[in-house]
Amino acid sequence: MATGHTDPHRRGRILAATLDLIAEEGVAGVSHRKIATRAKVPLGSMTYHFTGIDDLLCEAFTGYADHIVSVFEDHLSRATTADEAREAVTDLIHTLSEGPRRDLILAQELYTLAARHDAYRELCRRWMRRSRDLLEHHFDASTSRQLDALIEGLTLHRALDDTPPDRTLTREAVGRITGAAQRPS
Amino acid sequence: MATGHTDPHRRGRILAATLDLIAEEGVAGVSHRKIATRAKVPLGSMTYHFTGIDDLLCEAFTGYADHIVSVFEDHLSRATTADEAREAVTDLIHTLSEGPRRDLILAQELYTLAARHDAYRELCRRWMRRSRDLLEHHFDASTSRQLDALIEGLTLHRALDDTPPDRTLTREAVGRITGAAQRPS
Repeated sequence: MATGHTDPHRRGRILAATLDLIAEEGVAGVSHRKIATRAKVPLGSMTYHFTGIDDLLCEAFTGYADHIVSVFEDHLSRATTADEAREAVTDLIHTLSEGPRRDLILAQELYTLAARHDAYRELCRRWMRRSRDLLEHHFDASTSRQLDALIEGLTLHRALDDTPPDRTLTREAVGRITGAAQRPS
Repeated sequence: MATGHTDPHRRGRILAATLDLIAEEGVAGVSHRKIATRAKVPLGSMTYHFTGIDDLLCEAFTGYADHIVSVFEDHLSRATTADEAREAVTDLIHTLSEGPRRDLILAQELYTLAARHDAYRELCRRWMRRSRDLLEHHFDASTSRQLDALIEGLTLHRALDDTPPDRTLTREAVGRITGAAQRPS
């Protein structure tokens, strides 16, 4: 009985198909027609759910950012001490940098959009804010900002490297930026 | 008297036009025809200088990486002590993150290609290796690798932020990752 308008899964299918297409062909390769075909929805339903391709891309990338924030959250929520949080961040960097190539591609496609357009820059800022909020459960605001940047850089460099550095280096970097070495143990 | 084959500036003009086009329209918007028009060279001369679009893109991005490495070099070559090197790296992060939007866009376009294709990943690895070599004049290999990742992350996050953190935070992060706080002053 579900019509196109009330099918609760249609919107999600469109968003998932959009991310899949971006990962495969890049943002430039995306069109309403290709997404509709891939999501198995009528072309006309696209404009019911989204006002245009930018609205659709923003929603899709917001979903992608939500996914990465949930990976942050999964790792950090188990930590009860600063040392456990450091180990969780080390795990997080290795999970993200050794994860699906798709996630690396989507992050870079989003940053490329953000370098050009305010709407995507704003999306990235909200994402950075949420990552830092999670880190601030364990570290002060300034340290969280530095640590979030370190996570970004180490994740990208490890993902691009054919001989990425091992956990010892990651752990040391996280320890240094969070001042672990200066605490009495 | 210069023919197309011997015009020493033609190759450079093609490469500069390629980077300009990528910055404006993205890698997906680049074509031999558009580049030839922009560089004011005959379309036929493109295939004399470059075997194909991938060859051309790789050369153009190698030139871009050379440019960023020279910015690294300019900053770091003046430093004679570890403390001066830390200050130089702090300057470098602010120069890169507050620099032309064009450079931010080109970096992200390159990383997006690198996330998809080995040839560009290899280009990024050579670039990272050269950055680390410059840092290793002042810091050990492991620290240089951590610092290079921090430079990457802080530069990106500052460039995307509408209220980027000030030099105090950058200086603190660089000091922490290079172990400055642990040295007797």
